[in-house]
Amino acid sequence: MPTPKIHGIIGYTVTPFGANGEGLDLDALGRSIDRMIDAGVHAIAPLGSTGEGAYLNDAEWDQVAEFSLQHVAKRVPTIVSVSDLTTAKAIRRARFAQAQGADVVMVLPASYWKLSEAEILAHYQAIGASIDVPIMLYNNPATSGTDMSVELILKIFHAVENVTLVKESTGDIQRMHKLQLLGEGQVPFYNGCNPLALEAFAAGARGWCTAAANLIPQLNLDLYQAVLEHDLQRARALFYRQLPLLDFILKGGLPATVKAGLELTGLNAGEPRRPVFALNDSARQQLQTLLQTLS
Amino acid sequence: MPTPKIHGIIGYTVTPFGANGEGLDLDALGRSIDRMIDAGVHAIAPLGSTGEGAYLNDAEWDQVAEFSLQHVAKRVPTIVSVSDLTTAKAIRRARFAQAQGADVVMVLPASYWKLSEAEILAHYQAIGASIDVPIMLYNNPATSGTDMSVELILKIFHAVENVTLVKESTGDIQRMHKLQLLGEGQVPFYNGCNPLALEAFAAGARGWCTAAANLIPQLNLDLYQAVLEHDLQRARALFYRQLPLLDFILKGGLPATVKAGLELTGLNAGEPRRPVFALNDSARQQLQTLLQTLS
Amino acid sequence: MPTPKIHGIIGYTVTPFGANGEGLDLDALGRSIDRMIDAGVHAIAPLGSTGEGAYLNDAEWDQVAEFSLQHVAKRVPTIVSVSDLTTAKAIRRARFAQAQGADVVMVLPASYWKLSEAEILAHYQAIGASIDVPIMLYNNPATSGTDMSVELILKIFHAVENVTLVKESTGDIQRMHKLQLLGEGQVPFYNGCNPLALEAFAAGARGWCTAAANLIPQLNLDLYQAVLEHDLQRARALFYRQLPLLDFILKGGLPATVKAGLELTGLNAGEPRRPVFALNDSARQQLQTLLQTLS
Amino acid sequence: MPTPKIHGIIGYTVTPFGANGEGLDLDALGRSIDRMIDAGVHAIAPLGSTGEGAYLNDAEWDQVAEFSLQHVAKRVPTIVSVSDLTTAKAIRRARFAQAQGADVVMVLPASYWKLSEAEILAHYQAIGASIDVPIMLYNNPATSGTDMSVELILKIFHAVENVTLVKESTGDIQRMHKLQLLGEGQVPFYNGCNPLALEAFAAGARGWCTAAANLIPQLNLDLYQAVLEHDLQRARALFYRQLPLLDFILKGGLPATVKAGLELTGLNAGEPRRPVFALNDSARQQLQTLLQTLS
Repeated sequence: MPTPKIHGIIGYTVTPFGANGEGLDLDALGRSIDRMIDAGVHAIAPLGSTGEGAYLNDAEWDQVAEFSLQHVAKRVPTIVSVSDLTTAKAIRRARFAQAQGADVVMVLPASYWKLSEAEILAHYQAIGASIDVPIMLYNNPATSGTDMSVELILKIFHAVENVTLVKESTGDIQRMHKLQLLGEGQVPFYNGCNPLALEAFAAGARGWCTAAANLIPQLNLDLYQAVLEHDLQRARALFYRQLPLLDFILKGGLPATVKAGLELTGLNAGEPRRPVFALNDSARQQLQTLLQTLS
Repeated sequence: MPTPKIHGIIGYTVTPFGANGEGLDLDALGRSIDRMIDAGVHAIAPLGSTGEGAYLNDAEWDQVAEFSLQHVAKRVPTIVSVSDLTTAKAIRRARFAQAQGADVVMVLPASYWKLSEAEILAHYQAIGASIDVPIMLYNNPATSGTDMSVELILKIFHAVENVTLVKESTGDIQRMHKLQLLGEGQVPFYNGCNPLALEAFAAGARGWCTAAANLIPQLNLDLYQAVLEHDLQRARALFYRQLPLLDFILKGGLPATVKAGLELTGLNAGEPRRPVFALNDSARQQLQTLLQTLS
Repeated sequence: MPTPKIHGIIGYTVTPFGANGEGLDLDALGRSIDRMIDAGVHAIAPLGSTGEGAYLNDAEWDQVAEFSLQHVAKRVPTIVSVSDLTTAKAIRRARFAQAQGADVVMVLPASYWKLSEAEILAHYQAIGASIDVPIMLYNNPATSGTDMSVELILKIFHAVENVTLVKESTGDIQRMHKLQLLGEGQVPFYNGCNPLALEAFAAGARGWCTAAANLIPQLNLDLYQAVLEHDLQRARALFYRQLPLLDFILKGGLPATVKAGLELTGLNAGEPRRPVFALNDSARQQLQTLLQTLS
Repeated sequence: MPTPKIHGIIGYTVTPFGANGEGLDLDALGRSIDRMIDAGVHAIAPLGSTGEGAYLNDAEWDQVAEFSLQHVAKRVPTIVSVSDLTTAKAIRRARFAQAQGADVVMVLPASYWKLSEAEILAHYQAIGASIDVPIMLYNNPATSGTDMSVELILKIFHAVENVTLVKESTGDIQRMHKLQLLGEGQVPFYNGCNPLALEAFAAGARGWCTAAANLIPQLNLDLYQAVLEHDLQRARALFYRQLPLLDFILKGGLPATVKAGLELTGLNAGEPRRPVFALNDSARQQLQTLLQTLS
């Protein structure tokens, strides 16, 4: 399957809500997409963890997917997260995303019950068989509750034709080394753990999936550029410069911190949906200080 | 708030589906409820983990809640699990359950994002404020991804008037000891970890929340009776007799093993919804042997 | 191999030091042994974790072993911990203990390097082949860094003729259930985790290895008696009565808390050896309050 | 305190034994030291984990320390590991090492009992006050059982004048980022986790503490050189080339694998001391293949 060249900085969007976390603010979503594309990110990824995809009902999810794809309008590739709690629901989302023009769909094996390896494989097979676009397999035990070993990831990669990209977010850099070694350099992997940005690129990651691109896209892009130029010293300096912000948004929760950061930089994207809290005042103050230091 | 005397064996129901995991088989659900009530269980609990509540859409969830409550018809108290990924959705389910006559609702702080203690407390407060029936707080990090400390549980217990029961399923018996000590014997706790049935009763649990009551209700009830009579020797013997089955259904996954066990004992309840697999042949054979040994 | 009937309350001794943690105070050791035997404990166990066996040089270790055995003088069985970092050193200690009249030796696979299952088995085999007294296999990953699975424990139990007793201290009560089930009731197991005293007896443990017998032997013995009489209600009440003290000595560190408790009850046993601290004043005050409540 | 400029590749020595793990083979030790120094390593470190320091009695330990220091003879700095189970014993070793000319001593807070932060700090303070040479603080929870947080490490670094270097071996690269950020770039840190060699240098580690220098010193040195030249592409290629060997020696246990590797490359260093096994035949074969690929 021909896979678009996904690489570099992949910007994850938030899903802006109206008052009290109700309704969608698609206008704000459009502006956040434009900001990232204008800054130079290499791809846009709606409806991921940052996008609170798990908190949307089906109608809302469809609206956000459709709007995002139309608004990106192929300026860069779009990767739509289609994870859902049952295989049938994930397939529905995957088909919808494909119909609306998604370049890639991302699948996290999120499921209430712990899944066996056979169940995870079958989940990817069923989704893969129902669509024609490439799938980015996504491993993030902190949110999915399921940790896929490198061996399982490679098994799925080889067994499901359109699983052609791997996003690794365990926070354990050795997983990437193992993907590189056991995958014999043939498995394109992407980093989803913000504080590992430098290390993942050192390990050979093709891209960095990050919501930080909503706030500091230039620093994200500069780090990637230094890596492309093999300049370890500059990459290290750029990494340590942005690390406090990366740590902050990870620890504070991506939807809350990124939405607060957007507002602090002039784009009101509302608050996360409950039970997730908006950032409190002292944390907002911290975030503002961090952003000012970096601007 | 007057809380019904919830105690003893609390039977968790499966949600029977039609072919391919589509549709609901309410007739089978009714028969499974009758079997447990006729056997003597002290309460019925639909839509929990065993009931695949996370895999139902809203219309299905409402149907199962309504049917279960009407079918139990107050023969025993009914505890309806109303957990959902957002606070708003959990409130909707809690209100619906109350309107249909639920005696208690159960709430697991299941949420895609890791919640802070303040977020968890606010979640329970919001649900508590929206209904008039008691809430069973449910701690099960293996499925929710969120582990509530005993201190947090007690904070919620004291802060939210209608949180009056606690279900503990971490598998760490020392949590119950701590609930008993720090709660000064005033916090009614219930066991949700099948292989800890004996230990939890030894520690003073008021009840055992179990899907095993679908398959071996008499052994479950006999254990409880031995405990009521303070007969440690008989309780121990009864526990070790049923432990292999309890281990089996926990390790094999409750929906898959209990549905298979129901079919093996003459009640076809269909298969779990994908991505969860039905029990394979060799595991079914094992289960049949275990059930025969105990009958 | 004929094994002495080890059961009930097995009292672990401290090793009293002189000023600044130097020298040995054997007189104090003798009095602490007498206190426990006079109170009615069923066995004495010197040089375990509580006895700071790891902090003694070989000459000191030999003195404590010899003195303890002579002082107990077969009034009750004596279990001597002979663990050491190399197999050769553990064998030396085991032979010395046997020569001095130990009824049982206890072996924890403590080793700087993580050991493979084959290495652990060979360690027990080498020690077993070098002595004629029974060995109590001891599993305590919190101090040894090595967690032996129930399967490995049973493998060693069956492969090494004089490994005839198992002490389990993981704090996971399900390990004892598994020992009972997989061992088909033929493996005598003992509890080494103080806060699990009630649960372990409920699970069928033959004895409780505890340093608490230095401070509250009567409560320990009463709990065991209630269990022998199958009286769950009395056992539960006795357990919760002593649990705060059991939690306290576990969390505060056994050598520091038990030595402080001995002094508070009139037997000066000195301080632990550095780097371990003696109990600070506020903790001593807490301990005194706990002891007064129980006396 | 003037600290020698410790940087680059720090070669950890094995301790060669005679037949059956008895006696010392100082001649082999001397040749292994020469091999590393001749290859160009920047420092030599005897008696660490690889050197089985924990398995030596005091007389043996003194012999190895004295011989190593005399044999290195200041050709490069020598870092002697002086960790021991009590503070008094660690002080004895530290003073002995200093008297014999050690440039730096390394201290792991290895202790049978889990130590509190105050106990760990006091341990370093007591050792620091008893000597005049710099101390390399060593964090390796896998062998010591004690994990020092970055905050604690910095507290010790600032409180104990001669703690001037930090060796981090948790395997979590984010610890180094935190040392760099919270230490404001003033805390020299060294990597002790072989498979993180590239990542640690990317993060800014000043050196790599490794037993691999016994087997593939040139590859270790080349990686360091590429890092000094900021050439990320060459560093990455060199890292992946040696990673299979680094993984192998970590998983197989350093004393067993490095001693086997020394023999395979013409330097008979005997076997590890029991309970640690020598490498079995199939693993030796694997190691030979790995070494041949790299030579």
